Amino acid sequence: MPTPLSTASSRDRIAQARVVVTSPTRNFVTLVVTTEDGTVGIGDATLNGRELAVAAYLDEHLVPLLVGRDAGRIEDTWQYLYRGAYWRGGPVGMSALAAVDTALWDIKAKRADLPLHQLLGGRSRDKVRVYGHATGETIEETVADVGRLIDLGYTAVRAQTAVPGGTGTYGVSRPGEIYDPAHGSLPEETVWDTRSYLTHVPRLFEALRDTYGFEIALLHDVHHRLTPIEAARLGASLEPYDLFWIEDPTPAEDQTAFRLIRQHTRTPIATGEVLSSVHSVQTLITERLVDYVRTTVTHAGGLTHLRRIFDLAHLYGVRSGSHGATDLSPVCLGAAVHLDTAIPNFGIQEYMAHSALTDSVFPHSYRFADGYLHVGEDPGHGVHLDEEKAAEHPYSPAYLPVARLADGSVHDW
Amino acid sequence: MPTPLSTASSRDRIAQARVVVTSPTRNFVTLVVTTEDGTVGIGDATLNGRELAVAAYLDEHLVPLLVGRDAGRIEDTWQYLYRGAYWRGGPVGMSALAAVDTALWDIKAKRADLPLHQLLGGRSRDKVRVYGHATGETIEETVADVGRLIDLGYTAVRAQTAVPGGTGTYGVSRPGEIYDPAHGSLPEETVWDTRSYLTHVPRLFEALRDTYGFEIALLHDVHHRLTPIEAARLGASLEPYDLFWIEDPTPAEDQTAFRLIRQHTRTPIATGEVLSSVHSVQTLITERLVDYVRTTVTHAGGLTHLRRIFDLAHLYGVRSGSHGATDLSPVCLGAAVHLDTAIPNFGIQEYMAHSALTDSVFPHSYRFADGYLHVGEDPGHGVHLDEEKAAEHPYSPAYLPVARLADGSVHDW
Amino acid sequence: MPTPLSTASSRDRIAQARVVVTSPTRNFVTLVVTTEDGTVGIGDATLNGRELAVAAYLDEHLVPLLVGRDAGRIEDTWQYLYRGAYWRGGPVGMSALAAVDTALWDIKAKRADLPLHQLLGGRSRDKVRVYGHATGETIEETVADVGRLIDLGYTAVRAQTAVPGGTGTYGVSRPGEIYDPAHGSLPEETVWDTRSYLTHVPRLFEALRDTYGFEIALLHDVHHRLTPIEAARLGASLEPYDLFWIEDPTPAEDQTAFRLIRQHTRTPIATGEVLSSVHSVQTLITERLVDYVRTTVTHAGGLTHLRRIFDLAHLYGVRSGSHGATDLSPVCLGAAVHLDTAIPNFGIQEYMAHSALTDSVFPHSYRFADGYLHVGEDPGHGVHLDEEKAAEHPYSPAYLPVARLADGSVHDW
Amino acid sequence: MPTPLSTASSRDRIAQARVVVTSPTRNFVTLVVTTEDGTVGIGDATLNGRELAVAAYLDEHLVPLLVGRDAGRIEDTWQYLYRGAYWRGGPVGMSALAAVDTALWDIKAKRADLPLHQLLGGRSRDKVRVYGHATGETIEETVADVGRLIDLGYTAVRAQTAVPGGTGTYGVSRPGEIYDPAHGSLPEETVWDTRSYLTHVPRLFEALRDTYGFEIALLHDVHHRLTPIEAARLGASLEPYDLFWIEDPTPAEDQTAFRLIRQHTRTPIATGEVLSSVHSVQTLITERLVDYVRTTVTHAGGLTHLRRIFDLAHLYGVRSGSHGATDLSPVCLGAAVHLDTAIPNFGIQEYMAHSALTDSVFPHSYRFADGYLHVGEDPGHGVHLDEEKAAEHPYSPAYLPVARLADGSVHDW
Repeated sequence: MPTPLSTASSRDRIAQARVVVTSPTRNFVTLVVTTEDGTVGIGDATLNGRELAVAAYLDEHLVPLLVGRDAGRIEDTWQYLYRGAYWRGGPVGMSALAAVDTALWDIKAKRADLPLHQLLGGRSRDKVRVYGHATGETIEETVADVGRLIDLGYTAVRAQTAVPGGTGTYGVSRPGEIYDPAHGSLPEETVWDTRSYLTHVPRLFEALRDTYGFEIALLHDVHHRLTPIEAARLGASLEPYDLFWIEDPTPAEDQTAFRLIRQHTRTPIATGEVLSSVHSVQTLITERLVDYVRTTVTHAGGLTHLRRIFDLAHLYGVRSGSHGATDLSPVCLGAAVHLDTAIPNFGIQEYMAHSALTDSVFPHSYRFADGYLHVGEDPGHGVHLDEEKAAEHPYSPAYLPVARLADGSVHDW
Repeated sequence: MPTPLSTASSRDRIAQARVVVTSPTRNFVTLVVTTEDGTVGIGDATLNGRELAVAAYLDEHLVPLLVGRDAGRIEDTWQYLYRGAYWRGGPVGMSALAAVDTALWDIKAKRADLPLHQLLGGRSRDKVRVYGHATGETIEETVADVGRLIDLGYTAVRAQTAVPGGTGTYGVSRPGEIYDPAHGSLPEETVWDTRSYLTHVPRLFEALRDTYGFEIALLHDVHHRLTPIEAARLGASLEPYDLFWIEDPTPAEDQTAFRLIRQHTRTPIATGEVLSSVHSVQTLITERLVDYVRTTVTHAGGLTHLRRIFDLAHLYGVRSGSHGATDLSPVCLGAAVHLDTAIPNFGIQEYMAHSALTDSVFPHSYRFADGYLHVGEDPGHGVHLDEEKAAEHPYSPAYLPVARLADGSVHDW
Repeated sequence: MPTPLSTASSRDRIAQARVVVTSPTRNFVTLVVTTEDGTVGIGDATLNGRELAVAAYLDEHLVPLLVGRDAGRIEDTWQYLYRGAYWRGGPVGMSALAAVDTALWDIKAKRADLPLHQLLGGRSRDKVRVYGHATGETIEETVADVGRLIDLGYTAVRAQTAVPGGTGTYGVSRPGEIYDPAHGSLPEETVWDTRSYLTHVPRLFEALRDTYGFEIALLHDVHHRLTPIEAARLGASLEPYDLFWIEDPTPAEDQTAFRLIRQHTRTPIATGEVLSSVHSVQTLITERLVDYVRTTVTHAGGLTHLRRIFDLAHLYGVRSGSHGATDLSPVCLGAAVHLDTAIPNFGIQEYMAHSALTDSVFPHSYRFADGYLHVGEDPGHGVHLDEEKAAEHPYSPAYLPVARLADGSVHDW
Repeated sequence: MPTPLSTASSRDRIAQARVVVTSPTRNFVTLVVTTEDGTVGIGDATLNGRELAVAAYLDEHLVPLLVGRDAGRIEDTWQYLYRGAYWRGGPVGMSALAAVDTALWDIKAKRADLPLHQLLGGRSRDKVRVYGHATGETIEETVADVGRLIDLGYTAVRAQTAVPGGTGTYGVSRPGEIYDPAHGSLPEETVWDTRSYLTHVPRLFEALRDTYGFEIALLHDVHHRLTPIEAARLGASLEPYDLFWIEDPTPAEDQTAFRLIRQHTRTPIATGEVLSSVHSVQTLITERLVDYVRTTVTHAGGLTHLRRIFDLAHLYGVRSGSHGATDLSPVCLGAAVHLDTAIPNFGIQEYMAHSALTDSVFPHSYRFADGYLHVGEDPGHGVHLDEEKAAEHPYSPAYLPVARLADGSVHDW
């Protein structure tokens, strides 16, 4: 049987693939693919807190399969690696596959001398609306922080606040620090109090609407911590404040859980940042249980697979709203902005600016202005890796926190 | 808040956890956990063809969390590691988690001075019925091989045969070799022809029933290669030959795909060897779309999680039929035989004997006799790791094959 | 065929099983199982108001089957007694089966020299949150009684109050007496007025929130007395007062009745104290019609079966909230606290302290402090029976009340 | 509040209620109720293998509630005892309740000087078609036994045969004995082989149709031993032989299990002999998953409740087909024949003649002739208890068998 490899001209073959792990502020895993003709494509494979498992998956098991392969056969390579794993899917495998896929799309766009969005159908919009993060230890602090983001031009802001009775609330920074939940040689253990949370959050949004009115879009991240009926109650109690969405109201492992939430509230729902396969959102989308899908280029198997997820969503009137925190590298965000620019059913893009240090290791052509991200016109996805600088910031282990209830039992963080 | 760790007496704390990768015939990943009082428990973390990703997941990300932890808090540790990953689940993460879980149950049973099945509710049966593998390049060869297994005492045999027009058919050994699909520094690429397969397989089972009558249980593995309607046709065409099951008739990623098969055939259906979560079989079980669940201790998060899968199955009249090929180590098989012995809804256990070399590295108390596996009565799960011998057989990369159609497109292997 | 009994060493065989009926304040039925080596395990078989039917079920029909049986084969014994009844299930049979099961787990844990929770997966939490009972003839009295419980350290309180137009309201004590609904040689007949109840209850919770604010968790027991649409109205009218749950809003015989309630209110729902089988909560759980399952160790077939119920609940985001009134003995509560400590999806435990007299007949290692129950670390479940003291308090018949409407027709009590 | 008791004239009050346990061939529990005016009514409370639990339920807990009560208030008494139990339902409680209900209907009909069927609406038919039992160690023996029943006038025969590879097959007598599965001081343990059964049964019915043609109605009892897919296969494989029904194809605990059977076969299905509540057949009937409901007067709460079950069935085109084996006394059968005679949707009645000894203890006015049971015209249900003769046959413990698979695990008998 002729193998698919045989038809590529030698210049299109992959000459080399390497994994670079670097920690300029946070840990990032990057796959660098080079073809025989010297074209370089890069993909993000970061899985926050489990980075080296993905690095090993790539280094030991996928990279040997890439060398000699036709870089232009993206779909074939995707299927070959996805089905060839036999135990397919999962966050580690899909992140590794995403890095390959993103790097190959980067190469193909560079070969075409076109910005990536051109290969995805071209611009559907001029710019990509984003939402930023506002946090605070108190309602007053969060209100002030939302004001700061409005001043920066944001038209949409996610607002989180510390909850009385808990510690280390998600999305709330330590005093004087930029928010980064992953740190330390052991996971931080935070305390979660559902009752206090359900009482407190509506007060935050009441204060926000009182202060800023109803023009600004407000979002809120529940972070998987409620049961369906609790989420239903939260959604209902927030209806007067007209949220853009509540995010991850309940763990999405059993997609049918969202039916109960949906039955009781009209507050729009977003989910998907921890999901990695179209099958993990299939019921959510086809039963119209959510309004925004938040899967990412990196965790959902790359542009090839994520585009299929968004296409399914389009069919059911569901929009994109991809995760865009700094647990993923600028490579992921750069690729995402191309996809956001091209698809018909774009909703919003999360945006949490990387540190200047991160940006210096990953120079990129996308840019933020006036509440929007603007895609660049460089060939490829427009994000690069400065390997010299990367080498100055070696991997440093960091864990995401674990939450416990007051009785000591593990809860979703 | 006092952490749960604080209440363990020092002797119950985990002193050390190490990952051992060895290749006595095939590659196996083993986690060795030792408590302060010197009790040792081991768990299997093998993910065939992706072994080092799991090893890294354990080594880099989980082992640092285990040291100092109370070995008796199995449920807490399971939830802590599962939810603490944030991007939870998937074959890599669940295999790593399974190794921790299995090792902790091994330790707990040793602390209780009881064989593991006692902690799982005690013996529900005297012995565990298994099925063996018969293969052949032709129908005649497979018929002969089934006879060989019957002579060995098997009461149930899985029969596979090469399909005209294909190459390297799944389950069919190379001449003069024991079947082992994983080998080589690149995946073997086999050719698949659905039409030929659908015509050929009924002939095999007609020949088998003509030769051996209807007393012997016959099974067949479709290995994910058919669409639902093709699988429905196969099931219907095999009804005269009264199969014990057809396995993995279609990829199980979308569980609802099995509705179509089920609607058209009464041939019993088994699936689950590539699945790793109760959510990945939830619809299959609660809608009674399959009759046997084939998930394993290693890939499905250990005894803690697999027991929950089997309990759900029990409620719906679905039985266990766990995968038991040599892509998993004797540690997995040993733990499985304890669970098989204890649960009320045991169906059958796959059994593909490990090589003598594998068995010498993993001495164990379970044994095969007369078509059954017999659990041992040693404390714990009864499987040990001879680390000296293991060290003599270092890891050697091997890939499972990839299948293509005649036109070159990737198909499920 | 060799029977399973044949493999037990003689020391593990059951030598004797006896039923002890005693009434230290209330009637309790206890099964005492002794193995050949002298290990003693006990289980609660109390079915309030029908105690001697269970005692006869055990004495006449189960005890003869236990002698000589391997005490370690808990699952096998469970299936043997459950399926062997042919007319399986029901409160009498399941309570009898529970006593056997609980006694055998007690024995197994003692054989392992471990507290029972260790065999159930180990501690998932440090302590078990409970709710207590507040009652009163008037709203004012109930408000005061809630304050009393808050002062005792409770963080969750069930509040009941007499309803104008009725007599002998459930949960409301006679003046100067501790509440115990079972008494007398004939059932008390109380009068029930649905309309008055639906008007009155919201006033109680308005008063409670006005007095104590929203931090304390408040629960309410409807005690099966409403139709689904009435329950829906009650749930909706209580939403401003943010209840932890409403309990048994409608009889649960037809599980689908809860769909109507669920459709109309987000007030969390608990049910299950009168249910005895996983099948009796299967629709409630899998359709997410309730949020808490209140089945007990004693009425639901013991730890073996109740664990399966809770595991099913866990899969659907439903939590435990087991019944814990004094109609069950400390043996049930003690076993429950072990299960509560171990399972991942514990919600809350009802706690109505036994009288000092009851406690003296059933000395135990669990203890209440600061709104929580704390499991003991003795081997087994940690509850014992002082047979000498028990003999001083012979059985004394007592009935639960029956309710009638004003026109004389029987209503659910 | 005036109690319902106050309105009865003194002659209608229950003066006495007594439980008689007797074993003329098999064990039977009978409740004898006498009113102040000396009218005697009797009801059957037999629960085979658990007789004394029901006797205690009656003696200790219900009888004290009956004395002084208005015998004419049947509905009120039913609700009072059913709801007053609080832990309602189940085979023990429903059998006890049935005995009360049957005895009160007997009294009421005697007071009216009418045969019972008159109070149930009067004759809908002249006679009640029954089916008899044919058994054999071999197909040939069963074929011969069916011939014997045809010669006796039966127009419908249930045929069972021993299955090769099993022992003590259900429905098959020991050589030279009348079939009675309950005996011994310990349950007999039989061996069950599903595969052999599924192969063997179609051969039996092929032989029966070859011998007797298609006029005679043939029935078969699967006795809960198959999974849904196995039952589906059996139903399909029996279609050429046009069975009147297959009975209890799978355990009915989860009623939705019958959907799978129903989807795959048009062979009519009967179930219900182990069920005791309308809720336990509600899904089966409303989804039309069965064609005949086999619940009995005794196990399903008496005439009051069973009539409601049959009424629900009527609404959905489902017919009655009540269990009528000798595990229930002639009192149950006598009451059943009245109900069979009156209801519009009667299907068939099982009939397994009691021994002459049993009949001498329970003289009755119903009689078998020409394949039909003929109701008597005596006042009441026409079955009496000869207490003197009953006393000559004291209770003798007997258990129904338990089935195990070849590996020793418990299976449904």
